[in-house]
Order: sequence, then structure tokens, then C-alpha cells
Amino acid sequence: MDELSDIGEFGLIDLIKQDTINDHSSVIVGIGDDAAVVLPAPRQLQLLTADMLVETIHFDLTTTTPWQLGYKAIAVNLSDIAAMGGAPRHAVVSVALPPSIPVEFVVNLYKGMKEICREFGVNIVGGDTVASPQGLVINVTVTGEVEPAKLVRRSGAKPGDLVAVTGKLGSSAAGLALLQAGQWEDEDFAWPLVTAHLTPRPQVRTGQLLAALGATSMDDISDGLASEAHEIAKASQVGIKLFAGQIPLAPELAAAAARFNKRATDYALFGGEDFQLVFTMEPGKYETLLALHPDLPVTRVGEVVAAGEGVTLVDAAGCVQELKPRGFNHFRQEG
Amino acid sequence: MDELSDIGEFGLIDLIKQDTINDHSSVIVGIGDDAAVVLPAPRQLQLLTADMLVETIHFDLTTTTPWQLGYKAIAVNLSDIAAMGGAPRHAVVSVALPPSIPVEFVVNLYKGMKEICREFGVNIVGGDTVASPQGLVINVTVTGEVEPAKLVRRSGAKPGDLVAVTGKLGSSAAGLALLQAGQWEDEDFAWPLVTAHLTPRPQVRTGQLLAALGATSMDDISDGLASEAHEIAKASQVGIKLFAGQIPLAPELAAAAARFNKRATDYALFGGEDFQLVFTMEPGKYETLLALHPDLPVTRVGEVVAAGEGVTLVDAAGCVQELKPRGFNHFRQEG
Repeated sequence: MDELSDIGEFGLIDLIKQDTINDHSSVIVGIGDDAAVVLPAPRQLQLLTADMLVETIHFDLTTTTPWQLGYKAIAVNLSDIAAMGGAPRHAVVSVALPPSIPVEFVVNLYKGMKEICREFGVNIVGGDTVASPQGLVINVTVTGEVEPAKLVRRSGAKPGDLVAVTGKLGSSAAGLALLQAGQWEDEDFAWPLVTAHLTPRPQVRTGQLLAALGATSMDDISDGLASEAHEIAKASQVGIKLFAGQIPLAPELAAAAARFNKRATDYALFGGEDFQLVFTMEPGKYETLLALHPDLPVTRVGEVVAAGEGVTLVDAAGCVQELKPRGFNHFRQEG
Repeated sequence: MDELSDIGEFGLIDLIKQDTINDHSSVIVGIGDDAAVVLPAPRQLQLLTADMLVETIHFDLTTTTPWQLGYKAIAVNLSDIAAMGGAPRHAVVSVALPPSIPVEFVVNLYKGMKEICREFGVNIVGGDTVASPQGLVINVTVTGEVEPAKLVRRSGAKPGDLVAVTGKLGSSAAGLALLQAGQWEDEDFAWPLVTAHLTPRPQVRTGQLLAALGATSMDDISDGLASEAHEIAKASQVGIKLFAGQIPLAPELAAAAARFNKRATDYALFGGEDFQLVFTMEPGKYETLLALHPDLPVTRVGEVVAAGEGVTLVDAAGCVQELKPRGFNHFRQEG
């Protein structure tokens, strides 16, 4: 099997640059010159986001295939674009690769990237391929576009708005726990959770719809619902009250939580990488949203309150407790 | 001294985001939301480029300060924008940091980035800060803008054009050799070479000027003049003839070459990271360029010929020999 050191950097770039352009109308120069050249759409704001994934910190090559890893490396960035109400346009991909890595691994890594880019009409227009002394590092930067009137930030939540989320929460964190514990393949409940962790689906179209229908603030759920609620509360200078019993959970989550002797809602609140959206909206507009899109997978989970009330969780018994923003924080050990 | 693990990811981001915006008119949301939001200039093409720097592959922390490293991480990207004739606008910076790294190191790394961004009016609008199990990794993505009529690619060189370069070549590679050999600090000749290696100056304004005055192709010299000549020859489907005696060398290069018993021109031809520009232009336009800008540091080094002639070097004795594109190639061992 060929290793990277057999084909060299330029051979690798030739392999990578096939099938990278999905929207030819906006790309003038793709991979292969000093910089990519693209045509911005008129009268749109531009969005820019980046995520770096580091081997052993963000992924473990014993539990992900290269295809899945490539897919996820793009997905996490599209999720950030979705959280602003935008449409993703172009990706710039840098990879640091150990020279002993099989060429087939790199080809499959890019196949995963190209698959999700094709689904969402995103072009891979450039990047960098470098050697790594050990360990794989992937950085993806994605640009997006949004009409000025549809931009949604974290800072627009108002007391009286409701808080809602897309999809089911906690699946990814439970999937990660299963992957780390091993011996999950024979359990039917495990597959949807592991899939949610390895190949999350960014909520791009839902994000654009929520932006168009009046979301006042929005965030993607990358560090757990509790952490994102704090982000919105801080940026909007409001309080947020969440109802534990209303948080939507995948039916399989209970079995996983039981296996690890944890509460299912804790995976939703303090787990990470669901890449669903949390948003705030006036209740009347939310009714309109549901009337227009009865099948949209959104769930009301709380309400925006005055800043002085802080961020709280109401449990099944009606008890209100402060909700700490425990989530994933690089560099700091959990206390 | 504080380590990153003392202040955490969010404390770090608070430190980083100061003084990152130099052109407030084009930034709507900088660091701190899911994605940055910027305002593209109307009727401009957008440029996108990325470079990843990996510890022990691209830099050695025993021979660079964090400030210099930050400066260079941005500089290499501005050089790519310069090579297209563009103006750099926004930077997105991802760093993978060992948790034991001192906070002061990271602050100085960003100070170097902020200094060069300030010089060139570039905004740092976002990025990612993650942990690294070992070794520092920096990825910078830079956007730029260029008028459609002023875009210069590698592919426009025509037989009859001349080939010219900016600045002096070979200094960076000689500086690297001095840094690796050590004991260079007492040699006056060493300082300009080491400086050229550690804090290269991207030729942004010169690139824009050359684009406006009719450069037919352009490339930044990141892998040595020989390699870049091959890039232009391949993209433009032409041959290139370079004259060894015309290649501009820093006066200090001879002393360094003598120390290592090498030919000075080899540093220029096969060394890397000069981040000067090589361009092609009709001779008449070049005369106009020199008449309008007599102090512009450009030097004619060759001519564009028919593709069949290949890429050649004419030595002092007038002998023509094939010029191999030896330069830095990740993954492949030099033969």
C-alpha cells in the first residue's frame, strides 16, 4: 500500500483536487494557485468560521474511519454557519499528516469531506498539506453568506421569548461514551448514538428557516445545552430558564445512560457535539413556524427571563436550580 | 507564571480578542460568536488562502520567539494574497496548544500576529483554540480582495515576456542554515539573513502595483526560485530561462554560503521561504514600471520562452542547463 512519502505533496494535491467544486458559478480559481478566487454574491454578508481537530484530543483513529472523520471535520464548520442563519459556500482545508500514513487513508478522509460538501453545495477551494511529526491535525475554514436581514447572532434574545432546540440532544456524548467503553456493536440502541457522534448532520436548512422566521438568537450545540444557554444569556444580557422534562432525547439515550449509570438529560445538558441548534423566538412567531412547518423537528425547552434570574433548570418536581455551564473547555481540568 | 490550564479556553479567548480589528468598517462581528461576519467590498473578487505551521516541521521554538512565529504565520498567508495582486482583509487563526504552555507565550504569539495585521490593515476575526497533546500547530486562513481586472494568476506568462523578482533571494534559507548551525549571533552578516527567515515581509503593495501595471503571471517564492519558475511554466504552458548571474542576492549571503561551503545562488534557487515575488511581464510594460517607480526593488532575472525549451539556467559561462524544481516538498525524502 502506498504511503504519502511515495507520492509526495504534489501527487497528493493531484489526488485531492478532483471533485472539489460543486458550484462552478462561484469559483474562478480552486485548488492549485497561490490563493483561491471566488465570486461573492452581491448584497450578502460574509461569514467565516474555523475548527481545528487534533488526533487524541478530538478524535481517535481506533473508533472513527477516515471517511467519517472527513465528514465531521466539515460538518462542525457548517454547523457554525447554520447557527448564524447562513448558507455555507467555500471550504479551505489544511491537514498535517504523518508521512507514514497510507495514501488510501488520506483519499478516504477527503472522500468524507467531499460527500458532505456535495450534499450542501460547498466547494473545497484550497488549503495546505503538510507533514506532521506525529498525529493527524485537520483545520477547516468555511465561508458562508447571509442576507443582512437574516443574520442571527447570540445577542438578540429578549425576556418573553421562548427557547427551543432542533432534533434530539445528548446522542453524540452518549455515542462517544459507548465508543470509549467499547463492545457496543451488538447493542441496537448504540448505533444511532455512535452515528450521531461520528457523522453529525449540520442543521443548515433549518438554521436558514429559523433565521427567516424570526429567531432572535441562535447557537449551535457544540458544548452541551447548558453551556450554549449561558453563551446566549451572556451575549443577550438575559436569563434563561430550561425545563429538564422538555429536553428532547433520542429513544436510545435511556439505554445508554442506564449502562453508564448516568442521567440521560445530563448528556444533553453537559455533553457535547450534538451540532443541533438552540434558538430563541417570540412565542407568536414560534406558533407561525409550527403552523407553516408542522414536521420541523423543533422542541420548546424553556424561556428567556430577566438577566437577574440567571440560567436555571426546572426539574421534574418543579424545583429550580442554578444551571452551571459545564461543558467541554480546552486546557482546563474539570474541578 | 500562569499556564493555559490556569485560565482555560475562555480566559484565553478574552486575552486574544483585544486589538484584533484594524478596519472597523468591514467587520460586523469579530471573535466571539459562532462565525465572524464581514462586509465584502462590492465588485471585488475574493481570495482565500491557508497555511499550516507545525512545530519541528516548520519552526523550532529554540530558534524563534513566539512574537516572530506569530508574525511569520500571518506573513506567509499575506504573501499568497500578494502573489494574486490582492489586498489582504481578514484572518482566521486556529492554534493547537500544549496545555502546559505559558500564557505569556500565547500572548506574545498573538502580539506578533497583531503587529503584522496592524501594518497591513488586516483583521483577525475568528478562529479556534484547542489543546494539543504535544507540539504547537498554527493554521491561518486569510481572505483578500482584488478587482477582477487586476487578478494575476500563474497561468498568464507568454513567450517574449521577461521574468523578474522582487527583493533579494536566498536570504531566508541561509538564515535557516545559520539558525540550525548555531553560533551565528556574533557574525554581523548573519543578522539580516536570520531576520529574513524569522520575520519575512510579504510584498503586498508591490504585488498590487505589479498587478496594476500588467504582470502576466506571478507567484510568491516560498519553495525557491527554481520551483516557482516550474510552477509558472507548467500553469502557463511555457518555458523559462533564468540567468544565474542576474539573480539578486543580499550582500551578506556570500559570507553565509562560504561558511557552509555552498554556492550562494543555490540558496536562491533551491532554498525556500523568501516570500518575495517572481512575475512575468511584457518588456515594454517593465520599462514603464521602472520609469514610474525607479526605486522599486525589482530585478530582471530571465525570459519566458517556448514550452519546448523547458526551464533552464544559464550560468556565468553562458552554458545552459536544465533547472530541476528542487525545493521543499512535504512527505517526500530528497533523492
